[in-house]
Amino acid sequence: MGGDSGPRTVVAALVKSLHKHPTVSALLFGDQQCLQDELSLCNDQSLLSRIDVCHSPNFVAGTDQPSVALRRRRDTSMGMALRAVADDRASACISSGNTGILMALGMLELKTLPGIARPAICATLPTSQGHSYILDLGANLDCSAQQLVEFALLGSLTAQALDGLASPQVRLLNVGEEVSKGSEVIKTTAELLSHEPLINYAGFVEGDGIFKGLADVVVCDGFTGNVALKSSEGVARMIGDMIRESMGSSWLSRLLSLFMAGTFRDLRCRLDPAVYNGAYLLGLTRVVVKSHGGADEQAFGYALDVAIEAAKRNLPEVLSPILQAKYQQH
Amino acid sequence: MGGDSGPRTVVAALVKSLHKHPTVSALLFGDQQCLQDELSLCNDQSLLSRIDVCHSPNFVAGTDQPSVALRRRRDTSMGMALRAVADDRASACISSGNTGILMALGMLELKTLPGIARPAICATLPTSQGHSYILDLGANLDCSAQQLVEFALLGSLTAQALDGLASPQVRLLNVGEEVSKGSEVIKTTAELLSHEPLINYAGFVEGDGIFKGLADVVVCDGFTGNVALKSSEGVARMIGDMIRESMGSSWLSRLLSLFMAGTFRDLRCRLDPAVYNGAYLLGLTRVVVKSHGGADEQAFGYALDVAIEAAKRNLPEVLSPILQAKYQQH
Repeated sequence: MGGDSGPRTVVAALVKSLHKHPTVSALLFGDQQCLQDELSLCNDQSLLSRIDVCHSPNFVAGTDQPSVALRRRRDTSMGMALRAVADDRASACISSGNTGILMALGMLELKTLPGIARPAICATLPTSQGHSYILDLGANLDCSAQQLVEFALLGSLTAQALDGLASPQVRLLNVGEEVSKGSEVIKTTAELLSHEPLINYAGFVEGDGIFKGLADVVVCDGFTGNVALKSSEGVARMIGDMIRESMGSSWLSRLLSLFMAGTFRDLRCRLDPAVYNGAYLLGLTRVVVKSHGGADEQAFGYALDVAIEAAKRNLPEVLSPILQAKYQQH
Repeated sequence: MGGDSGPRTVVAALVKSLHKHPTVSALLFGDQQCLQDELSLCNDQSLLSRIDVCHSPNFVAGTDQPSVALRRRRDTSMGMALRAVADDRASACISSGNTGILMALGMLELKTLPGIARPAICATLPTSQGHSYILDLGANLDCSAQQLVEFALLGSLTAQALDGLASPQVRLLNVGEEVSKGSEVIKTTAELLSHEPLINYAGFVEGDGIFKGLADVVVCDGFTGNVALKSSEGVARMIGDMIRESMGSSWLSRLLSLFMAGTFRDLRCRLDPAVYNGAYLLGLTRVVVKSHGGADEQAFGYALDVAIEAAKRNLPEVLSPILQAKYQQH
């Protein structure tokens, strides 16, 4: 447990999160001694009473083969946390571990919702209009048209459940907006989506359209989504670095940057990848949230918020009967 | 001819470019009357004598079917401009027209270099280290491993020829850096590239790595490249808009932004998509450059610079014997 920076970050974020959400309690999986040491830094006994430390002798390493992780799941923190959700001892599982293994273990322990072959990784992205959901972000590199339709359904139902949108606009990520553009899989998916009564399909969207907020839900295969997300993060970071550099380049601009701090704090808040940390593994029967391996305390806190919000809204339970009804018809 | 804003932009940019490059002359294809009208705004007779207006009765519309454009190529501005390059009446062709049709007509009129099945669209992107070449950006949506190897070769030889790099680092765009990551095509390509003596293959790069400048040349299929490029442009534009908004939100920040103008001008120059306008159609036997359809005068000027530079360095002629030698061995 713990991601790149270990349990310290997770425990500190969890303590803050439990302060913020007084009705929430937590099971904490990992090395008991290590977790107790981190928790001993907190003096709030009533808060500590809401945290159950569950000792796990092992953990899934980032370099583990999925087969090894599957075999050893009964005594790894990731496997035991997922089992706790499967056994209804917890409402949501959150992990900073290897995404592929989290997905594989999640499918094994929790199963997928009716009609859904494989879950998709879904994150929210900032747009000039607010935010959009985008999926898949890397769980499924090659996708069939049928899979992309499943992702569209999952995304649309999620936007309805979490944002209260009556009819979220769903678009397919493509290299052009004209119907003649794209690969055969994309064109077939567009055809299927345009006949899908549960989805408000609005056509193709190009990469730049994501950030214009042209869609509430953007659907793509995991390869494309992963590259789009990471490229965007890369540009945002480069621009941030350039601003800092430019600001530091003269004493006058350094002085002025003090005055401008509010402006840039505001901007950073709207763009900060930490705010958008916490991706859903959509399509599982329970809430599973993946936090970025490199997340700091604040970012892990946002991922906890994402998990808590989805659990409070019973996300998979809301989706399940709709998918059941749809896929029973066939 | 002329892109979204018509011949006015192109003619104005061309006149400026000929001022800047006194040894360059131009053939201008389009409606003669219309072009003459635009040129009449220029009073410099000696400069005007370096521009030959070539009347073309038709043009390729953005919505034309490739088959129609191919049939009518003898009397469209795009077809006639490519023919002029094929006939050695010009050293480079630059167009703002439909990319797919420019590619199809280019292959027909100019043919591809030895061993190259299809050309790729290649652009330079700003990175924190300077710039990188990325290809393909949309000409080939599905690519075989062999095609990706061809793109890697084209990109590497181009970086050598244009930037004087002895051994450019070439990386494959992927969803992770570990060798186990990616689709079958990506893994096969990596295997082929690691045994290719003409290429300094440095492994995988993720989307955010592009902008860290981890590679001199980034190779990907046209679907992924197009989405990565446009997503990045979208984020950069959104951030620019947010900065402008934040700046305008109080009288104090507005006043300060006047003082900061230099800083932001500097930043804009380093990020301006216009500076990076002008993509090569790499793999053709002559220089063909695609300018963005929505390019303004300044951006079209940059695309002219790109074409002039590539023509001066005889880009395809430099690549041709190397590819010939390589592919004759097989």
